[in-house]
Amino acid sequence: MIPPALDKRRMDHLTWQEFAQRVKEDYIFLLVAGAIEEHGPHLPLGFDYMMGYEVALELANRYPLVVMPPLMYGYRSQATIGGGDQYPGTTCVGGEALMFTVRDILEEMIRHGARRLVVFNSHLENQNFLVEGIELARRMHDLKALQTKIMLSGWSYFIKDSTLDNLFDGNFPGWDPEHAALLETSAMLGINPDVVDMEKLPDESAPRYPKYSIFPTPPDIVTKNGALASAAGSSVEKGKLMLKDVWEGYEDAFGREFGLKPKYR
Amino acid sequence: MIPPALDKRRMDHLTWQEFAQRVKEDYIFLLVAGAIEEHGPHLPLGFDYMMGYEVALELANRYPLVVMPPLMYGYRSQATIGGGDQYPGTTCVGGEALMFTVRDILEEMIRHGARRLVVFNSHLENQNFLVEGIELARRMHDLKALQTKIMLSGWSYFIKDSTLDNLFDGNFPGWDPEHAALLETSAMLGINPDVVDMEKLPDESAPRYPKYSIFPTPPDIVTKNGALASAAGSSVEKGKLMLKDVWEGYEDAFGREFGLKPKYR
Amino acid sequence: MIPPALDKRRMDHLTWQEFAQRVKEDYIFLLVAGAIEEHGPHLPLGFDYMMGYEVALELANRYPLVVMPPLMYGYRSQATIGGGDQYPGTTCVGGEALMFTVRDILEEMIRHGARRLVVFNSHLENQNFLVEGIELARRMHDLKALQTKIMLSGWSYFIKDSTLDNLFDGNFPGWDPEHAALLETSAMLGINPDVVDMEKLPDESAPRYPKYSIFPTPPDIVTKNGALASAAGSSVEKGKLMLKDVWEGYEDAFGREFGLKPKYR
Amino acid sequence: MIPPALDKRRMDHLTWQEFAQRVKEDYIFLLVAGAIEEHGPHLPLGFDYMMGYEVALELANRYPLVVMPPLMYGYRSQATIGGGDQYPGTTCVGGEALMFTVRDILEEMIRHGARRLVVFNSHLENQNFLVEGIELARRMHDLKALQTKIMLSGWSYFIKDSTLDNLFDGNFPGWDPEHAALLETSAMLGINPDVVDMEKLPDESAPRYPKYSIFPTPPDIVTKNGALASAAGSSVEKGKLMLKDVWEGYEDAFGREFGLKPKYR
Amino acid sequence: MIPPALDKRRMDHLTWQEFAQRVKEDYIFLLVAGAIEEHGPHLPLGFDYMMGYEVALELANRYPLVVMPPLMYGYRSQATIGGGDQYPGTTCVGGEALMFTVRDILEEMIRHGARRLVVFNSHLENQNFLVEGIELARRMHDLKALQTKIMLSGWSYFIKDSTLDNLFDGNFPGWDPEHAALLETSAMLGINPDVVDMEKLPDESAPRYPKYSIFPTPPDIVTKNGALASAAGSSVEKGKLMLKDVWEGYEDAFGREFGLKPKYR
Amino acid sequence: MIPPALDKRRMDHLTWQEFAQRVKEDYIFLLVAGAIEEHGPHLPLGFDYMMGYEVALELANRYPLVVMPPLMYGYRSQATIGGGDQYPGTTCVGGEALMFTVRDILEEMIRHGARRLVVFNSHLENQNFLVEGIELARRMHDLKALQTKIMLSGWSYFIKDSTLDNLFDGNFPGWDPEHAALLETSAMLGINPDVVDMEKLPDESAPRYPKYSIFPTPPDIVTKNGALASAAGSSVEKGKLMLKDVWEGYEDAFGREFGLKPKYR
Repeated sequence: MIPPALDKRRMDHLTWQEFAQRVKEDYIFLLVAGAIEEHGPHLPLGFDYMMGYEVALELANRYPLVVMPPLMYGYRSQATIGGGDQYPGTTCVGGEALMFTVRDILEEMIRHGARRLVVFNSHLENQNFLVEGIELARRMHDLKALQTKIMLSGWSYFIKDSTLDNLFDGNFPGWDPEHAALLETSAMLGINPDVVDMEKLPDESAPRYPKYSIFPTPPDIVTKNGALASAAGSSVEKGKLMLKDVWEGYEDAFGREFGLKPKYR
Repeated sequence: MIPPALDKRRMDHLTWQEFAQRVKEDYIFLLVAGAIEEHGPHLPLGFDYMMGYEVALELANRYPLVVMPPLMYGYRSQATIGGGDQYPGTTCVGGEALMFTVRDILEEMIRHGARRLVVFNSHLENQNFLVEGIELARRMHDLKALQTKIMLSGWSYFIKDSTLDNLFDGNFPGWDPEHAALLETSAMLGINPDVVDMEKLPDESAPRYPKYSIFPTPPDIVTKNGALASAAGSSVEKGKLMLKDVWEGYEDAFGREFGLKPKYR
Repeated sequence: MIPPALDKRRMDHLTWQEFAQRVKEDYIFLLVAGAIEEHGPHLPLGFDYMMGYEVALELANRYPLVVMPPLMYGYRSQATIGGGDQYPGTTCVGGEALMFTVRDILEEMIRHGARRLVVFNSHLENQNFLVEGIELARRMHDLKALQTKIMLSGWSYFIKDSTLDNLFDGNFPGWDPEHAALLETSAMLGINPDVVDMEKLPDESAPRYPKYSIFPTPPDIVTKNGALASAAGSSVEKGKLMLKDVWEGYEDAFGREFGLKPKYR
Repeated sequence: MIPPALDKRRMDHLTWQEFAQRVKEDYIFLLVAGAIEEHGPHLPLGFDYMMGYEVALELANRYPLVVMPPLMYGYRSQATIGGGDQYPGTTCVGGEALMFTVRDILEEMIRHGARRLVVFNSHLENQNFLVEGIELARRMHDLKALQTKIMLSGWSYFIKDSTLDNLFDGNFPGWDPEHAALLETSAMLGINPDVVDMEKLPDESAPRYPKYSIFPTPPDIVTKNGALASAAGSSVEKGKLMLKDVWEGYEDAFGREFGLKPKYR
Repeated sequence: MIPPALDKRRMDHLTWQEFAQRVKEDYIFLLVAGAIEEHGPHLPLGFDYMMGYEVALELANRYPLVVMPPLMYGYRSQATIGGGDQYPGTTCVGGEALMFTVRDILEEMIRHGARRLVVFNSHLENQNFLVEGIELARRMHDLKALQTKIMLSGWSYFIKDSTLDNLFDGNFPGWDPEHAALLETSAMLGINPDVVDMEKLPDESAPRYPKYSIFPTPPDIVTKNGALASAAGSSVEKGKLMLKDVWEGYEDAFGREFGLKPKYR
Repeated sequence: MIPPALDKRRMDHLTWQEFAQRVKEDYIFLLVAGAIEEHGPHLPLGFDYMMGYEVALELANRYPLVVMPPLMYGYRSQATIGGGDQYPGTTCVGGEALMFTVRDILEEMIRHGARRLVVFNSHLENQNFLVEGIELARRMHDLKALQTKIMLSGWSYFIKDSTLDNLFDGNFPGWDPEHAALLETSAMLGINPDVVDMEKLPDESAPRYPKYSIFPTPPDIVTKNGALASAAGSSVEKGKLMLKDVWEGYEDAFGREFGLKPKYR
């Protein structure tokens, strides 16, 4: 958890005076929202927040940006998106817990005077509760008057269709079933390969992949191993291809919304 | 955040199969609840959860114990205990967010079949909301029938009066004003000295330390630097003295409640 | 609101004895969740629930299915999906209101003994709050023991990629920007053309369509007329093409999950 | 649900531009709160909201008034007022769902600039939760400064004692036991007779009608058919007599509070 | 607050062993819900709970009944029922506070094994939130299996129409405007005359008494003194007449529901 | 409950005009938060609020201070602090109920213009929920602009270490285990001896007193009688010694924060 030397890209590693200085200099403050969710036999339960956190730290290399302590627990995993709650280890929170947490943290940051806030979603199921957290926070504050902007985004939002076409030879099945499969595995390989157990790459699909959700989850819509599609063929190169889109996406987003250029590309 | 090799003491670093195995073997699962709160000029904002997390990892060396992803954000900092919200960087959540989060996580763990649960409090203000999270979770489950126990404790709970007498020459002022002062600073020095900036140890007290709380906070009950008392004289040795009590406290607690002995002392 | 003769496909038009009979005969009970949201100059504010309700009534022609009173108000409209709240008339509810409403209604239906429940989403932003309503309801009941299934789906879930390719000549821009544009307009034309004002079909796009959300909404990511893309070329035929997928989708879904065949196709 | 031509008295049938125009012209916006509740063998489950909606549409003929999408689901039916939850089909929501829904909708309307708001209660049990929704909404807005008024009323509020004396020959038993009985049946006959099944008018009373509530409901305080008193003798004429009071009541109320006269009487 | 000797009719004055004994003997446990609300120039702010508490203590003389600590604060006062919040001193709680409090207390009593519970309402505005508290508590417990009954009633519920006719010479204006007027004043005179300041009996009416509620409250629907109608003519005798109905009402209710007879009449 | 003559120190005994006068004169308004909790064989269930209320009434003799209706029910009793919920009679509320109640009452008082507010805690477990109630209330109001202060304190906060040393001959075991033991018993003896049953003073300790909490409560950490330590030796004199600290503590607190001197000492 704690590296030998403190990492000053991380808000939890700053003193309050260092934090105050960064607010004064209008740094971006970025909150990763992840999940603790099964990710197949080859990826750890913390994949979602870890992936988001890795991307965030790299963004802090490129921009005046502070990475806030991440929300490690995310919204309830759904069977056709994240495997669902029938796998041991998938440990989630409900709607109230997540949306009130986001609301409270954002209100604190607004109170501190931070004006460039990013909520960074790294677990699809979180999306609407992050929105509600933002909506509840801005209900209490006049963001326009405060010249404060809140951006909601995530690493996967910026992957281009052309990249997906490229990676899947034109047969991209959509993000939902790509849980713990080629995309996520490659993305992590591209940024921190030590996290992936390459000897256990799953190569299996659920017997069927319905377009609807059904509660309780029927056993035949999830795989035994937890990945919703095959991770075979995952590679560092594929990951780097995707990450290129991420860096470009944020270059565009931070440029347009915050008027900031990266220190390097 | 992510060490070169995954650390299998950490739940977020386990695969779901590894997690399932540990549940089967009746491991303890331990949830640290910390805070993001000013801690003077010499300690980082994340002190509370970091201190708890360090202790937890060492407990995982001694016992069959999995360290769950910590709750980094804690309940609203109070002026005479944690400095309060007037310091930049102190970023907290409210009662609902904390208690619903704890409730939801505990219910997930009970659902997974974990029977030895520890909520580890590392930020005084959290206490009652952790209690309420536990109470709400057990309202939905028959813990007795499930043979499940939830222990609520923290590193500071086990420091003996004799140790405090020893450290303060018999003049221990109580835990509340000891925020970011000698006790916390020494405790961290005892377990991870790299986190402490020894050149900035504060040596100041608030002009007065009332026995009541007052809202809004009057300026004269907090120091300028954020520590509520002096940290002068903090040392690795003092920290180790305190930690000895912690290890003994958990030896007693885990022995009596869970029937477990440490692998070493 | 009230047709000359009561429509016995509608739950609100049944007496309680008629309702009881349908529960006994294991009818499907279907709850449409819509929204009151701007839909351009050519579609009414109630489009979302109306579209869902029309589809639901046709499903009641084909299956033993009762259409429950719809949830007309939906979750907060988002700028890049539904235009957002800066248009007059967009009148939404927050997360708590929606998820508690769904929870309570589902618990009532479970109490009545209904065993085939469908939550029918007709407004994208509703999705996770419907999930949470379902999750909260099933937290209190053992659906497996009750042999009860809850399906979450919607008309748009079943439109095939091949149909979209067909409609957009291979250039389908994704569902999000298709608000009040060709897809929704054609779908309504296909089922109830009287609702569409063909003389006001919008043909405009927002200056930019970001992949992230930004609060408060910048003026250049929404159009003046409220449709997020062009509705030009909308037609009854295109609508019928899409609806064909919907009927096939439900034939598959109801067949597989509920063991039911349609009376006709 | 959807008439051949859109009905421009209904908010859900307006485009957002039409809505905006009505706000500008200071129309009244009226929200019916009904219920889905057993109403004997001769009236449909949706009676409460249907009755309110019929009255509201007629008010829209007489005043510059827009009928908002109704709240079809209402607060939990109570045995001695609405028959209670032991009848199949009675499908209600709890206090949180109703009061948060009303709060959110009212806040949206206040945000749109509507200054004449009417919450129209058509189900007795709703009353206090509508009040709380209003109170929660006005807690966030300065209605006086906005020159905004919220009126809470309903069709039954305006029936005069003299009319009740007239209808019951001086033996009016009070509103509570009149559930699905002479008053409600006649009122619907007076405005939309097609909804009433005259061949099934119930003519029975519960064995006893206590002045208190008792949980769980004893079987002898409700009738088998669901009507709490006899509906025998219900007629169009009696309904019209009551509705006359309603139109006069709103003439007085809208005149005094909103300064509006009806287009006709 | 505390009489020289403890009063063993009061639960707060019992030791836990005495309490346990009364549970064993199947005593009734009665919870008064009052309010802190202006009551004219002649009655104290605590009138509602005080009146309920006095009646409850007398019931404890007649039945095996324990008076629980009352809920002194009640739901928000409404202008046409209780004067509303524009009078200084009217100090109320919102819907969540009241309904969660009632839920929690009832669940505790059910847990203790109490099987005869009475929620005693002494403030009209409380009614539905007491209902919701009861509904939320019984959602978690099988009252039938526990042979537990919860009665919701209050002193005013049992006053007979003939008594009101008698008191008002046939011109009873209804309970709502009778706030702090003849009925309430007489009732208190009948049970504890020391609480009434007879020299300040108000004799005034509001300029108008609308059948609807309007927010914010117009000044002309409330009196200057706080009583909504005249209290002139209030007397001990009138109070005793009303209380006779109360004792008879509870004799009937406790007899029928709990099988208990009073020790005296 | 109600003394022969009304007691004008009590807010519930004031008329609204008397209340208004006291607000105008900037009285302190003090809210006691107690509990209904077992207190051994010699003290009543209401001890916590009763003790607080007695102290509050005496403060009203010394200062311009109004004692508000107390919160009789408190937060869930914990085994090692208050005996816990396994004793019959311990009847508590959860976190939401308590914190929303405090929030609502404080907001009412702020609305009335009260500027000197005291929340008086007389039950340790209440502490953080009182804090949250205060925090939620002040979130909605600018206390600084209103020149309003809220003090959170309680009688036990002001007992000096020297007094405890004196009472325990230097062996004070800490407040937590002192439940229903020497301190509480003596304190009540010092202010209202009629409440204490001296013939039943318990003199027992739990077999062990852990530094952690464990759920469900193990039987050996609580005594059979409910007192967590011995009450032997309790006396009026010891109580008066403690109360002396209380009066001095409030003299200091009210003097410093509110600029008020006591009428006498």
